[in-house]
Amino acid sequence: MTTESAFVELMRNIAIDPSARGLLDDTAVIDFGDQSLVLTHDMMAEGVHWRSNADPADVAWKLVASNLSDLAAKGARPLGVLLGFMLGEDEWDRKFSKGLKEILDRYGVSLLGGDTVSNRGDKRALGLTAIGMATHRPVPSRDGAQIGDSVYVTGTLGDALAGFELIDAGFDEVGSLASAYNRPVPRLAEGQALAPIVHAMMDISDGLLIDVERMARASRVGVTIDLSAIPLSPLYVSYRTNSQESRLQAASWGDDYELLFAARDATLPVPVTCVGKFTDGAGLTLTDGEKQIPLPPSLGYQHH
Amino acid sequence: MTTESAFVELMRNIAIDPSARGLLDDTAVIDFGDQSLVLTHDMMAEGVHWRSNADPADVAWKLVASNLSDLAAKGARPLGVLLGFMLGEDEWDRKFSKGLKEILDRYGVSLLGGDTVSNRGDKRALGLTAIGMATHRPVPSRDGAQIGDSVYVTGTLGDALAGFELIDAGFDEVGSLASAYNRPVPRLAEGQALAPIVHAMMDISDGLLIDVERMARASRVGVTIDLSAIPLSPLYVSYRTNSQESRLQAASWGDDYELLFAARDATLPVPVTCVGKFTDGAGLTLTDGEKQIPLPPSLGYQHH
Repeated sequence: MTTESAFVELMRNIAIDPSARGLLDDTAVIDFGDQSLVLTHDMMAEGVHWRSNADPADVAWKLVASNLSDLAAKGARPLGVLLGFMLGEDEWDRKFSKGLKEILDRYGVSLLGGDTVSNRGDKRALGLTAIGMATHRPVPSRDGAQIGDSVYVTGTLGDALAGFELIDAGFDEVGSLASAYNRPVPRLAEGQALAPIVHAMMDISDGLLIDVERMARASRVGVTIDLSAIPLSPLYVSYRTNSQESRLQAASWGDDYELLFAARDATLPVPVTCVGKFTDGAGLTLTDGEKQIPLPPSLGYQHH
Repeated sequence: MTTESAFVELMRNIAIDPSARGLLDDTAVIDFGDQSLVLTHDMMAEGVHWRSNADPADVAWKLVASNLSDLAAKGARPLGVLLGFMLGEDEWDRKFSKGLKEILDRYGVSLLGGDTVSNRGDKRALGLTAIGMATHRPVPSRDGAQIGDSVYVTGTLGDALAGFELIDAGFDEVGSLASAYNRPVPRLAEGQALAPIVHAMMDISDGLLIDVERMARASRVGVTIDLSAIPLSPLYVSYRTNSQESRLQAASWGDDYELLFAARDATLPVPVTCVGKFTDGAGLTLTDGEKQIPLPPSLGYQHH
């Protein structure tokens, strides 16, 4: 099977318009006079992005949230979404539409259109396109991190991982950790507040380590992450401890959808945690406090 | 399984923004100051929209063409597309990307972004979002046909049907008829020329009869179609004759992607054929010349 990186390489030869940002960013940015439109499309597949027994309302939530999170990382205000929906069993589809309405209502986003297809395969696939309006220009990209910038993240990391494990182990009532996995919160307000200040910004969809390494590579700088600084929630710590191993996992697991950004040290408009520094050179260096430690075999989720 | 109409009904309760046009149109229209952005999303699934042995380059062509055709019906100039791609076998993916480049180059459209997912099912699904800029405002919709307007279509109908049958019968070299099916031509220039003149416009994706009936219903008028006026190509006639049955099939088969519009009789800027009239009352009436004939059991392709 073609790997994602091989296919994106093929696509890069086609995506020559500057709006495509060389497919190096999570969104396309189209400038219109004095406004910029931000566009993103995510696809999710049964058995890859959700289990067959997942609550369809959660599937809808996550499909929308992951796209809104991409808009958040551009400081964009969402205008609406288009849905590509594969029809299936009645009850599943009704629950899905309920979850869809919930998240769209929550964030004041409108369904603008889309398409339905019948399902002749055994697994469903869904697509969502989100359209937003930039609230600040230039629109933040991945490639602007500068040597000496700090690495910041919003919120806490690892809660989605802990939630996934609890669900996987068969716990139904797992409260906010399961919620972190099933119903991630797109950081829209934070993204808009941060857009004027950051040098680079993206959301953490595949894991902090892999995503910050991508940001450093796109920006042609190096980066050092201090594991001891990774923000963990009290619930995460009570469930998975505060060990180096536990922090390492929180830093290399996706699905948290927190924002990751590069900025100078300054008073920042929203609560964030500094977890490292962009440096001269290239690549990712990991420390635990002052002490350098080896990189784990996997930095995060790699799409196949 | 949920039917398309039942699901769209569920979605209509969510799609309350005026930009969604009540999900009655093929596109969403977002107004920005003095400009309008037109957005459409189509999904295609293996086994539903293409056969497993189809040329992947044709699949890519049709995926893009069907979306550009929706933009054409709004008189929009395409700005770019976002692709949702399910990864698969290397050679298929390479051929697909070649076909994608061909059609994007042909119409000067850029790939702006998108997403890839692995395929854990047995059939692939693909999604495409096309973004265009309206060249005329108000942007034509389905619901503006007026009593006394003529029904016009661009090009000829039925060629895609004849092409499909030839391919189905195992003919490889079937020239322009197979092309009509595999590589439909989005009527972008025609749509832009017609947008200032029409009262309503849409593309014929499911069949003239079913689509004109939808236009009449949305416009709260009746419509009469004269089968004897259906424009047929010489190749279509040589292959399938010029009988009433043959015309009826040409009028109730989709995939031609010609434009269908309502306008007063006037000098029109592009070659078109008048095939009927919007009338007082409701519903579709069919004639063959002067003589009224019964409606066929199916007016066109119904999505399930």
